[in-house]
Amino acid sequence: MLVEFSIIPIGKGSSLGDDIAKVLEIVDGSKLPYKINPMGTVVEGSWDDVVRLIKKCHNTVMKNSERIITTISIDDRKGKPSRIEEKVRSVEKRLGKTLRK
Amino acid sequence: MLVEFSIIPIGKGSSLGDDIAKVLEIVDGSKLPYKINPMGTVVEGSWDDVVRLIKKCHNTVMKNSERIITTISIDDRKGKPSRIEEKVRSVEKRLGKTLRK
Amino acid sequence: MLVEFSIIPIGKGSSLGDDIAKVLEIVDGSKLPYKINPMGTVVEGSWDDVVRLIKKCHNTVMKNSERIITTISIDDRKGKPSRIEEKVRSVEKRLGKTLRK
Amino acid sequence: MLVEFSIIPIGKGSSLGDDIAKVLEIVDGSKLPYKINPMGTVVEGSWDDVVRLIKKCHNTVMKNSERIITTISIDDRKGKPSRIEEKVRSVEKRLGKTLRK
Repeated sequence: MLVEFSIIPIGKGSSLGDDIAKVLEIVDGSKLPYKINPMGTVVEGSWDDVVRLIKKCHNTVMKNSERIITTISIDDRKGKPSRIEEKVRSVEKRLGKTLRK
Repeated sequence: MLVEFSIIPIGKGSSLGDDIAKVLEIVDGSKLPYKINPMGTVVEGSWDDVVRLIKKCHNTVMKNSERIITTISIDDRKGKPSRIEEKVRSVEKRLGKTLRK
Repeated sequence: MLVEFSIIPIGKGSSLGDDIAKVLEIVDGSKLPYKINPMGTVVEGSWDDVVRLIKKCHNTVMKNSERIITTISIDDRKGKPSRIEEKVRSVEKRLGKTLRK
Repeated sequence: MLVEFSIIPIGKGSSLGDDIAKVLEIVDGSKLPYKINPMGTVVEGSWDDVVRLIKKCHNTVMKNSERIITTISIDDRKGKPSRIEEKVRSVEKRLGKTLRK
């Protein structure tokens, strides 16, 4: 299961870097393969592993926040593991060129 | 915790009504307060209750699908229960008029 | 085209009611069919009409904000107008019962 | 304005690579800075430039599809250009280490 998520605290000022750093420390310390991008974090794993990780991140940010918005997008495809690397690679192969990542 | 989710099977034709009906039967049979709209379903409950419900819906649709996209938006706010009714009502109060729902 | 959107100002406190009220006043004053729910607003119209409306809402909230997150989900289906009412109705017909809205 | 988007055709089979390749060819040919990830594409630019690009991508995929779901997340922050590189870099600086991208 490939999952992108982002956690946004509301009402704590417009700079979110401290909270994002805490989240990424948790993600980096987990065993799940991940990739960060300017709008969120993509992780790959089973439903339970991924949801447990996101819950831990959500609760960590919630500790010091009044309100947070957490967004999760799941792409679940039968019989397709290791998609965190393969999806982008297969598109580049189709186009015959390297894209910006 | 207020949560909107939608589950979209890919590759089964462009009509999704049967799968959406199965999902809403599960939601309607749960004990959680919910509201459906043309783009998704809003439920209210604890992290564990809501995630358990969405997992059940996701797995039910996955049984007969090759691939599905599940999207989840969580609005978690301290000390604010019963927001599934209150959020809309408080905006109507501010505007002094009834909005279309 | 059926479109759900939400606009969230960050860093202005955890109560967003004033900004949401401004957005819904703009939506209610437009000619587009709409439905609000506890997590967002669904509108129906052409790409240009819907995007013009969301841009107006976004810019209105941005006037008094340092930073906002705007989320837009588009469900575009050929030859299917009036889906803002039909989608929910067709699921209720399938299930043979009325759902909470 | 930093914007992530994804376009998913429904009902054309569970492999979406051809359509994603078409979208990324359009993005790569535009003048806007972009970064792709396994779940979507992040672009940076003004509202009008970004929306024009996404509309072109959406319409290109719609040509050969019955139905598509397009999802757009906008992070708009005053006085902060070049965030497509800076956001990730600033979190890495806070953590004092390089993260997977």
